[in-house]
Amino acid sequence: MAEIHETAIVYPGTILGEGVKVLEGAVVGKQPTLSPRSTAKREPLPPAEIGDGTIVSTGAVLFAGSRLGARVILGDQACVRERVTIGDDVVVGRGSLVENDTTIGAMTKIQAGAYITAYSTLEEHVFIAPCVVTSNDNFMGRTERRHDLIEGPTIRRGARVGAGAVLCPAIEIGEEAFVGAGAVVTKDVPARKLVVGNPARILRDVPDDELLES
Amino acid sequence: MAEIHETAIVYPGTILGEGVKVLEGAVVGKQPTLSPRSTAKREPLPPAEIGDGTIVSTGAVLFAGSRLGARVILGDQACVRERVTIGDDVVVGRGSLVENDTTIGAMTKIQAGAYITAYSTLEEHVFIAPCVVTSNDNFMGRTERRHDLIEGPTIRRGARVGAGAVLCPAIEIGEEAFVGAGAVVTKDVPARKLVVGNPARILRDVPDDELLES
Amino acid sequence: MAEIHETAIVYPGTILGEGVKVLEGAVVGKQPTLSPRSTAKREPLPPAEIGDGTIVSTGAVLFAGSRLGARVILGDQACVRERVTIGDDVVVGRGSLVENDTTIGAMTKIQAGAYITAYSTLEEHVFIAPCVVTSNDNFMGRTERRHDLIEGPTIRRGARVGAGAVLCPAIEIGEEAFVGAGAVVTKDVPARKLVVGNPARILRDVPDDELLES
Repeated sequence: MAEIHETAIVYPGTILGEGVKVLEGAVVGKQPTLSPRSTAKREPLPPAEIGDGTIVSTGAVLFAGSRLGARVILGDQACVRERVTIGDDVVVGRGSLVENDTTIGAMTKIQAGAYITAYSTLEEHVFIAPCVVTSNDNFMGRTERRHDLIEGPTIRRGARVGAGAVLCPAIEIGEEAFVGAGAVVTKDVPARKLVVGNPARILRDVPDDELLES
Repeated sequence: MAEIHETAIVYPGTILGEGVKVLEGAVVGKQPTLSPRSTAKREPLPPAEIGDGTIVSTGAVLFAGSRLGARVILGDQACVRERVTIGDDVVVGRGSLVENDTTIGAMTKIQAGAYITAYSTLEEHVFIAPCVVTSNDNFMGRTERRHDLIEGPTIRRGARVGAGAVLCPAIEIGEEAFVGAGAVVTKDVPARKLVVGNPARILRDVPDDELLES
Repeated sequence: MAEIHETAIVYPGTILGEGVKVLEGAVVGKQPTLSPRSTAKREPLPPAEIGDGTIVSTGAVLFAGSRLGARVILGDQACVRERVTIGDDVVVGRGSLVENDTTIGAMTKIQAGAYITAYSTLEEHVFIAPCVVTSNDNFMGRTERRHDLIEGPTIRRGARVGAGAVLCPAIEIGEEAFVGAGAVVTKDVPARKLVVGNPARILRDVPDDELLES
């Protein structure tokens, strides 16, 4: 049984796991209302699917065509767009946005106010600190060839991205890498390296005792 | 005919064009409830006006005293304050805020999570990437003379501002200029120049094939 | 008498002062629905308390266990978590988030889109510009010892933090100090100093005519 607050809206067809909670004013399973100028795809979308024990918090919005795993927390006032796949035990923090066509691995934690652009890949055990900004379009809406070149970040297993950091389009953050708070990342970050600054540069290795296996 | 979701609120007097849609939980035409300490003006506000085909998305808030053109998309959970004028075919991305007394030209696109401060001017065909931050008060609330000096950015036709960039108060971004992701812009940017860094410096010209006319 | 919009939710037990207004779709006094992995405390929470003349704006969320002083403005779509104490005449701007276990002194102004992390202290007359980012965990979710080391910023009386600035964990911003827009603050800022850049460095003293007493 799911528990849906009387002020929440869950569109017909949505698949709700055991023990799902949908809190005050949340909207689940809405179809996109695209701009004529949007680059997003337009095929009809299947209903949203929500795994066992997942919570869609107050004022959050979840689009049709996306799947949340089990025990996910979609925070207050957060938003997950269409064609997103989110693994088990993920947190999407308050007010964060996960754009369309993005994949997020199990155990990944996205803190409050983060922006995950379209066509992103976040693997498992990734940590996205508050207010991280990602991007996918070096041309910012110009040229026709941009449509073929749009690419979000790839953030590998166990990587951590610090508060307010900005990732340029198509950046890869290596396994267990660490991006310092406020860094502006203009090129790929190798595995287990720590980067800081604008533009971000390598400062040192991530200490062993902060690795996932330790 | 406008299409207003049953959970949306549209205050009396609001002028709605043909084919306007107001989605779940949106609030349209609300009067401001100002702080005693706010510097915003206090005259009575006329109703909001919304042009043909415009969409006010889920959970968005549009104040009285503002006008949206035709075919505008006001994204989910976005907010547009009072005395704002927005041209045709503009997008205000999910969660973005457009503060009071701001003018936005036709075809301008403001992506998700951007902050457009009060007393800003954005001309036509401007591109504001996600989570751009603007400002208008060098004194941050101190001194009496600040009231005469408050000035938001002027962003000229076709300029593009990258993800997470920060504009200091009263900055002018020239026509077709390009501000790189994460740049902190402390002085005006000449037309067609590309700037990056903190503080932002000129790196090169914007390539011809990225200009509006190309 | 409080004035509660018919679409707002005020949970039973909430203490509402004289002249409190709760606007459209706001949710007041909700109990947290924590992630199993959250580091927040779990004791049962007393009701929220709201002082005389305070406004909880459209779509805002206020948790149980927090107290707002008199004449506070909690802006549209903002959120205040549990065990937060907010003094009189404070503004929490539109869309801002104040995380749990935070204290905010009287007359402090937090502008739109700011992120105030858990376990923060903001004293009186602090000015937080739009989209400021704070943080409290140098380990970003790794190591067991991080739980003892989590510490938000301490922002002293009259300090000002500029638009889009990022504060690393446990930073102290001294009395009347000034952090420039877009600065990334990696160490404490002495009283009355002005810092800019990434990493932030001292540029000069704050001018006398911008001090609180002038």
